[in-house]
Amino acid sequence: MSNRFVDILVVEDNNGERESIVDALQTTILNVRVTAFSRGAEALDFLLARGDWTARLGVPPPKLILLDLSLSGSNAYYLLGQIRSVEPGNALTLTPVVMFTDSRAASDISDCYRCGANSYITKPLNFPDFKAVVEMVGRYWITHNRTAA
Amino acid sequence: MSNRFVDILVVEDNNGERESIVDALQTTILNVRVTAFSRGAEALDFLLARGDWTARLGVPPPKLILLDLSLSGSNAYYLLGQIRSVEPGNALTLTPVVMFTDSRAASDISDCYRCGANSYITKPLNFPDFKAVVEMVGRYWITHNRTAA
Repeated sequence: MSNRFVDILVVEDNNGERESIVDALQTTILNVRVTAFSRGAEALDFLLARGDWTARLGVPPPKLILLDLSLSGSNAYYLLGQIRSVEPGNALTLTPVVMFTDSRAASDISDCYRCGANSYITKPLNFPDFKAVVEMVGRYWITHNRTAA
Repeated sequence: MSNRFVDILVVEDNNGERESIVDALQTTILNVRVTAFSRGAEALDFLLARGDWTARLGVPPPKLILLDLSLSGSNAYYLLGQIRSVEPGNALTLTPVVMFTDSRAASDISDCYRCGANSYITKPLNFPDFKAVVEMVGRYWITHNRTAA
């Protein structure tokens, strides 16, 4: 993996879904740079230029973080909280975070917005819809939305 | 106008653009309920069930607020701040707000996210693109995104 800028950071612990998400994004958005992690701790090191990622210091944050809510062995709320509580001068704190999850629980939806998620998208159950939703999310946030960085 | 639930609240002071936005949303999303205001103060009365809108008390907030940044005679940042500072039990405080604006200034983009905007979309200069972007924004937030209310 490169130490340079990425457009989209995907955090998803299900290997099959993670590969499908990255593939759908790369297929639908020309020249998009996507990096994916299975664990929140790895993603946080990447975003904060720590651990294996110190060479990324000063690189702007992604334009989109696509975050699975139910990460095994990690806590997506913790990751979201860390992103929203970095120092105000770091554009990471303003980076769009879209939750991508199986949970339709009202409490999860409220809690994610309260913790600073920009959007909450539920995973469709069949593959064609799953792919179509990932493509729409990618196009919306990369092609149309503007970020602070 | 009805006192009941609306899916999308549009706040836009340019009459032609406001009509184009409402028309594009109603054309592209089946049965969508859209209400539009030209002034931030009117929109705030509607959202807070004040003034002419006391009959709306207890009605859930919209699923999307589409907010022009440069409202004549109003301050979009003030409206955004009021929405994000209503009491925590009111779902309005978690309602997605998408900025829709001519401004491409980095300071406006940062300030909007810092004040709690969920997304920042710039207005395309020609009508077909303007309409296409409004349709995409509407479909994303109404058809795919989930809100707390």
